[in-house]
Amino acid sequence: MSTDKNILVIGTGLIGTSIALGLKAQGLQVYLSDFDSAALAAALKVSGASEFTDQEIALVVIATPPASVANVIARALDDHPRAVITDVASVKGSIFRELEQLGSSGWDRIVGGHPMAGREVSGAIGAQGNLFLDRPWVIASSERTSVDAIATVKNLVESLGAFPIFRTIDEHDRAVALISHTPQVVASVLAGELMDAEGSYIDLAGQGIRDTIRIAGSDSSLWTEILSENSHFIAQQVTSVANQLLEFAKALDDGNRETVKAKLIKGNRGRDRLPGKHGSTRTSTSLLVVRLDDKPGELARLFTVAAQANVNLEDVRIDHSLGHPTGLVELSVAPKSIAVLKPALEVENFVVIS
Amino acid sequence: MSTDKNILVIGTGLIGTSIALGLKAQGLQVYLSDFDSAALAAALKVSGASEFTDQEIALVVIATPPASVANVIARALDDHPRAVITDVASVKGSIFRELEQLGSSGWDRIVGGHPMAGREVSGAIGAQGNLFLDRPWVIASSERTSVDAIATVKNLVESLGAFPIFRTIDEHDRAVALISHTPQVVASVLAGELMDAEGSYIDLAGQGIRDTIRIAGSDSSLWTEILSENSHFIAQQVTSVANQLLEFAKALDDGNRETVKAKLIKGNRGRDRLPGKHGSTRTSTSLLVVRLDDKPGELARLFTVAAQANVNLEDVRIDHSLGHPTGLVELSVAPKSIAVLKPALEVENFVVIS
Repeated sequence: MSTDKNILVIGTGLIGTSIALGLKAQGLQVYLSDFDSAALAAALKVSGASEFTDQEIALVVIATPPASVANVIARALDDHPRAVITDVASVKGSIFRELEQLGSSGWDRIVGGHPMAGREVSGAIGAQGNLFLDRPWVIASSERTSVDAIATVKNLVESLGAFPIFRTIDEHDRAVALISHTPQVVASVLAGELMDAEGSYIDLAGQGIRDTIRIAGSDSSLWTEILSENSHFIAQQVTSVANQLLEFAKALDDGNRETVKAKLIKGNRGRDRLPGKHGSTRTSTSLLVVRLDDKPGELARLFTVAAQANVNLEDVRIDHSLGHPTGLVELSVAPKSIAVLKPALEVENFVVIS
Repeated sequence: MSTDKNILVIGTGLIGTSIALGLKAQGLQVYLSDFDSAALAAALKVSGASEFTDQEIALVVIATPPASVANVIARALDDHPRAVITDVASVKGSIFRELEQLGSSGWDRIVGGHPMAGREVSGAIGAQGNLFLDRPWVIASSERTSVDAIATVKNLVESLGAFPIFRTIDEHDRAVALISHTPQVVASVLAGELMDAEGSYIDLAGQGIRDTIRIAGSDSSLWTEILSENSHFIAQQVTSVANQLLEFAKALDDGNRETVKAKLIKGNRGRDRLPGKHGSTRTSTSLLVVRLDDKPGELARLFTVAAQANVNLEDVRIDHSLGHPTGLVELSVAPKSIAVLKPALEVENFVVIS
């Protein structure tokens, strides 16, 4: 971004204030507005940005709650007739459809955005200028968006340390329905089944179900809004999963082992399509399980040994076994590293289990 | 276990040989048998146990493939008329039903077992005497099992460093259907949906779906057998999940936000029922996200700082962001530890994001 262009951020919650902070750190001119004057005051203080009055604006970033975004865009198009307008909502199609209904013009200046970052807290007080560092930020434009407008938003994204990914609006919404929203619904439903279960069943839970339902802990108010905005694609995808599950149940009831196995293999292959570390295709890793005392310092000692052995850890997982004072740590490493890491750990008196 | 009692392990794969190794390390008398003489030879070499010929046996541990277990138990009851018989299969009801059909007697001597441990490799060559250390081992007996037989198996479990959990056969099988087998089916089906998706969608995948479908990577042959042995309870549970998903899809299609939110909240509460670290109820933790260079030594440095600050890590997660040379590490710590850990990391030049 050029330092002589003014940027206006509308909506001063966590995301809006974090954007303002990040842009101020780059020496850019940032103005804030919010209909909630207390929220605005807090954001001005936290970010060091200035209150918007009547400055000439080159770029408007809308970070208001999802349901209000279309209206705020329509208003911004009128108020800032030369500015590029972008937003940060996690669903895009519903916003563009609402803009059509509002009869908005200025489509060449509208660029949809979706920074894939967040925090567990909300409000300006939780803002961080580096919130978007190394995170993907989808830029979703319509065919009527100008190349210049897209370039402006790309600059914004890169100024904040995020990396831009370009998709159409439809691609974006179908993609997040599949890879974000449907997993949320599935995890929530599976976790919900535990509410009807006896405690003695739940005591046997291991790391598998723990991972499968981790995201069921998500904020229910926020996710009600997100799911509702993208309801069409999600309902399709969730229905497809439900029908596949009913087929699976039937194969089990029929004792049809071939079908059961074919479905498990399809799952193996689907999982292998997820991009691995650094965007590479997932490469095979080997697992080393290490037992260690549950006290400060043991993990550090473990990773110091790994570093001394020059072994890079692809993943780390702490296995929360039931009712015991020691912990099991699973290390994922390249298969060839096992022969180096295992003896290195054993020399340092770690108990290596596999 | 008493050192003057002979233990026979039948089946010398990974689990059987690991049991033999662990018991030998306790100075116990262990004999092995396997109809596969090459497998037996390898296991004898690895474990230091002796080949079974005609010794008087006090405890038989059956570690053959699940489908064969009932027949091997029936044979062992005849061959070792004074021995306690236990097994290690992950489903119990199907074995006991098959024993009824075989007209077995000696029910007082049969104790079902299920060590909840495993490795990614198979065969004697992967065996480890400490494979069961700190792992739960379910002891599932019928109402006809004698207290003495249960005590013998409890001793076995404790000799191997595992901790015993007592359940009825029905409780065990319903519990694993809910907390292990159904999550496997759900994860496999959800991952399978990725096979039909465009690559551009999958590129947006983040940590959420990655966790949700992690176990979809499981071995399809082994899991076909496991799921088939417990098919009745699993089919019931999977059907219930499918019906809940269809209800969820309908609520989305109907724009019924209250129902959507209620289901998300039920998921929140279900997840909160999972036992936390050390069997305690899950306590709330705060998340700190740290950016670090992807090179050996950085993780060690990070955990050294945490140890110096005397902060205990509840969980560690490496976020594999798409296409970037740096990594984001999520640390879960007690909320009160944030105020200590964050400045401690920043002093050491770590970039703390939240």
